[in-house]
Amino acid sequence: MSESTKAELAHPLVAIDRLEAFIASALVVVGISADDATEVAKLMAESDAYGGDAHGIFRLQQYVSQIENGAINARPNIRVINDRPGTALLDGDKALGHLVMKRAAQLAIEKAALTGIGWVGTQHSNHAGPAHLYARMPLQHDMVGLYFCVGNANLLPPWGGTEVLLSTNPISIAVPGLRHPAIVLDMATTNTALGKIRLKAQRNEPIPEGWMIDRQGKPLTDPKRASEGFLVPVGGPKGYGLALMFGLLAGTLNDAAFGRDVVNYTKDSKTPSNTGQAIVALDIAGFLDVQVFKEKVDDVWDMMKSSPTLPGFDEVRLPGERSGKLYEDRVAHGVPLGPELRKVLDELADRLKIQRLN
Amino acid sequence: MSESTKAELAHPLVAIDRLEAFIASALVVVGISADDATEVAKLMAESDAYGGDAHGIFRLQQYVSQIENGAINARPNIRVINDRPGTALLDGDKALGHLVMKRAAQLAIEKAALTGIGWVGTQHSNHAGPAHLYARMPLQHDMVGLYFCVGNANLLPPWGGTEVLLSTNPISIAVPGLRHPAIVLDMATTNTALGKIRLKAQRNEPIPEGWMIDRQGKPLTDPKRASEGFLVPVGGPKGYGLALMFGLLAGTLNDAAFGRDVVNYTKDSKTPSNTGQAIVALDIAGFLDVQVFKEKVDDVWDMMKSSPTLPGFDEVRLPGERSGKLYEDRVAHGVPLGPELRKVLDELADRLKIQRLN
Repeated sequence: MSESTKAELAHPLVAIDRLEAFIASALVVVGISADDATEVAKLMAESDAYGGDAHGIFRLQQYVSQIENGAINARPNIRVINDRPGTALLDGDKALGHLVMKRAAQLAIEKAALTGIGWVGTQHSNHAGPAHLYARMPLQHDMVGLYFCVGNANLLPPWGGTEVLLSTNPISIAVPGLRHPAIVLDMATTNTALGKIRLKAQRNEPIPEGWMIDRQGKPLTDPKRASEGFLVPVGGPKGYGLALMFGLLAGTLNDAAFGRDVVNYTKDSKTPSNTGQAIVALDIAGFLDVQVFKEKVDDVWDMMKSSPTLPGFDEVRLPGERSGKLYEDRVAHGVPLGPELRKVLDELADRLKIQRLN
Repeated sequence: MSESTKAELAHPLVAIDRLEAFIASALVVVGISADDATEVAKLMAESDAYGGDAHGIFRLQQYVSQIENGAINARPNIRVINDRPGTALLDGDKALGHLVMKRAAQLAIEKAALTGIGWVGTQHSNHAGPAHLYARMPLQHDMVGLYFCVGNANLLPPWGGTEVLLSTNPISIAVPGLRHPAIVLDMATTNTALGKIRLKAQRNEPIPEGWMIDRQGKPLTDPKRASEGFLVPVGGPKGYGLALMFGLLAGTLNDAAFGRDVVNYTKDSKTPSNTGQAIVALDIAGFLDVQVFKEKVDDVWDMMKSSPTLPGFDEVRLPGERSGKLYEDRVAHGVPLGPELRKVLDELADRLKIQRLN
């Protein structure tokens, strides 16, 4: 068990339904409709259940601030502005990103049911929590899910450069199994994601070497200096390439922000972010019998798990395996909330005049 | 100018059309139809023109050997075996991979013209040269191209494991510009590709540290020992995740080889490889006006190129920029062929009783 996991276990656990209720009540106070608030709260709490601690209730204060400042539209009209049998572009009308992306995923699934594939892009969307939430949505329809987006803060220069023109631009791909859980990749194109660095800063823990460099190219490990540095892409120029290409597909192609146009909503809660995202639903039956495919995915799971390990490794893990286990555990027992986050949420509750979480 | 570029310049240059003629004549001798041989030769020489030295004529001897041994079918019946408006699965009937993938790309483009997107998978295909050749094909139809495949040799264990269950599984994405060339990523999910290691071995140059590790997890730099080690994924577990997910999409979903079923055709030229690939064509007009999009891509190019550099870097490069310049240069002046490769090709010519390349 890692040190950070031990520290987490010492934090009091909060049940998922209490997280949901708290989030929804905060969102309703700032003008979100009851239905929308419930939907967003479910997705945010689901993020916490999966262990995406930097993407769930951790973000609530920021969203509230953006809604109060008009950067997020509390009463949006999300609509399709370009429609083809297999593709669509959604104008999110500055809605909470979760609402835009849930609608985008549903539309992609509908299209895939008819044509075999649906690719739906979004513009004027916002931060929507962890990528895998949306890549997972096609799974229950016997489809594969893929999700790309432009991250909401530039922390990555092009390879060899010093101007932070790119974000972590995460990629998520979800493939269903039968006996085993779905295999779900959710990765930033950098060695770590901004959220993890923010969490280190909140916990006052040093940033591991290799996560960030400063503007002289030296490792940056002091969490208080995080804003001075930038993230390091996976595989050097390759991670830069992935961040750039998926940024073009999720941002530029959707007429959403990319490059210098990206608004860092953690620093600026007043300017609309024009976040761009893309979701793909791919119908398995267009290729292979669904049952046969899922059995084959199970075989891949077994092949990886039963393979021998390097010294220092207990086992080989599948993408999404750890978060899937955390999900079961946290749905059953609750989510650990550290004292710093709890303090932020208490202050928010007091300011909004809603009941505190504890 | 790098040392290896200087060494290359010392090699005699061979014109593209002579490469094509040589490749086509070799393929015809072993039973490929004249039309198919011409098509494959064009794509192989195009690979050399783009600087993909390990993916062009370098592979000819292996393909010939596979054809002679029946692992590649000289007279294939490539056919659609699952068809939806936006997706298809192609049975390549063990054809040369170039023929299967060109057909797959054409079909994806046709589907995208009708529905906005086409995703075509292949099974019973073979090695098809560099990924970007196919990702580029949708560009001239004002579409974005994406290509994934299962590599033809397992050299990568799952993260933390020691059994080589995964290949480099390359990813290519191509996006068109207007004033500037297309931006084209073509990357292995490992810190380097097998082809580059084979080239180092052929040139008897040491393998740079970080490219391979041995079965004790130590760096492997001796090119003669390449078969004892395995490749290192980009970003550690993330590169493993990418190789796994795109392997599931290009292999498992197409009922093609993945994991232990992958045949290393560089060692086994008798067993059909059942290679799986996937190509996606995405119609730009389904999202944004094509002209507007291309101008925006140009703006991204300019933004990256004009951004300041780290010490030690002359300039920021775009994905595909270097290979695009090489292409122009080599189409004009020819492809440098080293003495080792020339010897292999001369021996092949003599054995097949065709005219030598020089």
